[in-house]
Order: sequence, then C-alpha cells, then structure tokens
Amino acid sequence: MAERSQLPPALITSGSVSTAVTGRLSLYLRELQHLVRDGHETTSSKRLGQPLGITGAQVRKDLANFGQFGYPGVGYRCQELIGQIKKILGTNQPWSVALVGIGNLGRALLGYRGFIQQGFHIGVAFDIDRAMIGRTIEGIEVYGMPEMASVIARQEIKLAALAVPAAAAQGVADQLVDAGIHGLLNFAPVTLSLPESIRLVEVDLAIELEQLSFAVVNRQQKN
Amino acid sequence: MAERSQLPPALITSGSVSTAVTGRLSLYLRELQHLVRDGHETTSSKRLGQPLGITGAQVRKDLANFGQFGYPGVGYRCQELIGQIKKILGTNQPWSVALVGIGNLGRALLGYRGFIQQGFHIGVAFDIDRAMIGRTIEGIEVYGMPEMASVIARQEIKLAALAVPAAAAQGVADQLVDAGIHGLLNFAPVTLSLPESIRLVEVDLAIELEQLSFAVVNRQQKN
Repeated sequence: MAERSQLPPALITSGSVSTAVTGRLSLYLRELQHLVRDGHETTSSKRLGQPLGITGAQVRKDLANFGQFGYPGVGYRCQELIGQIKKILGTNQPWSVALVGIGNLGRALLGYRGFIQQGFHIGVAFDIDRAMIGRTIEGIEVYGMPEMASVIARQEIKLAALAVPAAAAQGVADQLVDAGIHGLLNFAPVTLSLPESIRLVEVDLAIELEQLSFAVVNRQQKN
Repeated sequence: MAERSQLPPALITSGSVSTAVTGRLSLYLRELQHLVRDGHETTSSKRLGQPLGITGAQVRKDLANFGQFGYPGVGYRCQELIGQIKKILGTNQPWSVALVGIGNLGRALLGYRGFIQQGFHIGVAFDIDRAMIGRTIEGIEVYGMPEMASVIARQEIKLAALAVPAAAAQGVADQLVDAGIHGLLNFAPVTLSLPESIRLVEVDLAIELEQLSFAVVNRQQKN
C-alpha cells in the first residue's frame, strides 16, 4: 500500500476543540467505513489510527474530547462509533449545500459522489449566466443571483460552496452571508474577508500538489 | 475576519518529517505570500502563525526541521523565507503534472489558477473519449490511454492528477505507476492500493464540508 494521506484543516481552534481534531474525526470516520465494508465489527484505537499514520494514543485523546466510546476487552464497535462521530460532526442529519457558480468546477461538484456518501447534497445552484438560469442540471435547479436571499432563506440552507472566478468571489461571499449562510467552502484561489461568525474553509489544491513534490524531491535525494 | 482554515494532510510520516509539518509549510508559504503582497518585508514566527491559528513556537519548531532561517532582532525576511520553503517543498522548480480524465473536474483542474500560482501546471492530459483525443483544451494536448507510458516517459513527468470515475481509478492508477509516476493526486472517491514507493494524496472534499457542518452545529448549540 502506498503511503496515504487525506486532508484535515489546519490547527485553528473552533470553540474548545481545534479543527485539527475535527479533521482527524473525519479521517477516523472514513477508516471506520472502510473497516465495516471489509466486514469488521470492532476495532482498536491502534488499528483505527495505523493506516492514517496516527498513534492509538492520539486516537483515544481525540475521541475523549467528545465522550467515552470504547468497551473494555472489545475496543470500538465500528457501526456505533460511525454513528457517534457523525453526530459530533453534525452529519447524522442530511445537509443541503448551495452551490454558486456552475462552470466546470461547479458541474464537477454537482456530480461529486463523495458528498452524497457523507450526507451532503447540492440542494440549489446559482449562476449569473442567463442561459443557465431556470435550467435543471444534474437534477438541481439553477437560479439567478437576485433570487439568492429568498431561495436560501426558504430552503433554510446554512452551507455554501463557492465556485466562481476569483474576481467575483468576495462579492458573492458577501451576498451569501447576507442571505444567512453560516459556513462557506471557497474554491476560488483568493483570500476572503468575512465576519467572525462565519466559518470559512478554503480549498487550496496546490497544497496537495506541494505534498507530492516534497515527497518526490526527497525520494530523488534518497535514491 | 472569519475563522479561516486550509488543508494540510494527516499526520503521516514521510521519511523523518511528518506530512503534518510539510502541510504547515504550505500554509506558512501562503501566509508569507500574503504578507509580501501587503508590503511586509519581515515577519515574526508569532505573526506568521497567528492568522493560521498556529503558535509561534510551533512555527519555529516546524522550520527548525529544515535549518536556521530567522535573524536575531529582525525575524524572518519574507521573500527569503518564501524561497527557502519553496526549495524544501520542491516548488523552486516548475512541475509538470499529467491529468487523466477531462470530464467536468478535469476541465476545472485545467483552468485552476491556484496551481500556476504555486509553480504547477498541467503539462499533458489523457482521456478515453475518442472525440477528445488529439484535441487541445486550454492549451493542453489530449492523448489516448495507450500513449500514456511513452508520453510520460518522454516528458519526464513525475506527478499525476486522477480525475476519472471511481470505477476506473485503480486501473488508471496502475497504468500511471507503470508509466513512471512517483506522486499521485486522487480526486476519485475511492481508496487506491499502490506500491509503497508511490506517494498518494487523496482529495476528499466531504472532509471540508464536515468541518463546516461541525462548526454550524456547534454555533447553533451556542446560540
């Protein structure tokens, strides 16, 4: 098996628990889902962390922030822990996400199976392109920007994904905040300035490539 | 400013330095680039880490893995440290990346400005769709899969991005490894099994959304 990594966010505290911890919860959730798919009913903290390069002690410490989940002599019951982590992450309920921008990236997000697998779905899309407004793409209705506030309020949507060009991103983000969005996933390669109360996650795909270039350079130096 | 986070990979050791450290190097690099854009010539470890929610002590410890970069009474010289971090990450040289799959996601990656900003560019693309093969999209030539090995060898490409459907991902990844790729960025929502020597980074966009749902659920509980 190749050395494998996924992507929890940076060490930024969110209330009393850092997002490094909640990022690792996502990784534990994925690994538990793999274990269940492979027929395992129980696991240990060591076994759960091992494929992720995380020690058993760190797994136990992370989970201890949220309660007591293991059983003496048994370890963790996989399905039960999946349910508990989903409850912590808030994904024990389905989330509808507003997508703004249906260019290539937006369309890719509309069809992204990884969202559905974890309880997220794009519930509505917005674009400025008049040719798109009023159409239904991958089952999702596309609205114009002036309708954003009323549609988001009516559908009680709290999360949005921003897939617009960099130059438009701040303006659209401000509109989303005014519309009542609480959390924003920004794919535009630009730093947004938003009110304190809004949780912003910036997707920077070049960071992933930098991990690869680092590994390749070090491999070349070793060989 | 909203609470902000970006996405270094999990705590998986790569040689002597964990990818948590190299992931933070990417964040320091972005922050230094912001500082330079805002006209700052020097910075301190505290100031560098602060917007990232990382302590000055952690910044100093991370950088100390790679050498001595600060100046007494001055701190870090921003441009100099940018150059040094790029050298560590291997991005002081340009990287050509092979893209496999030019559906919506692949096309979005072809136009992704965040890659170019950090020294990466898609150098060549592959697809199985005969209607695409031989065409040039966003300036990039599209080849068929049988040409993969020869094109990658000829262009000496070491990094690849995989944007194919989940069902095709393992087969294509095997082909890329055979073609001589050393690092693979996988966008397909499926776990790949690859030789030890290959560095694999899996992009799981639902993790980012889980960070948002966690924050929104906790915000609702607080209010």
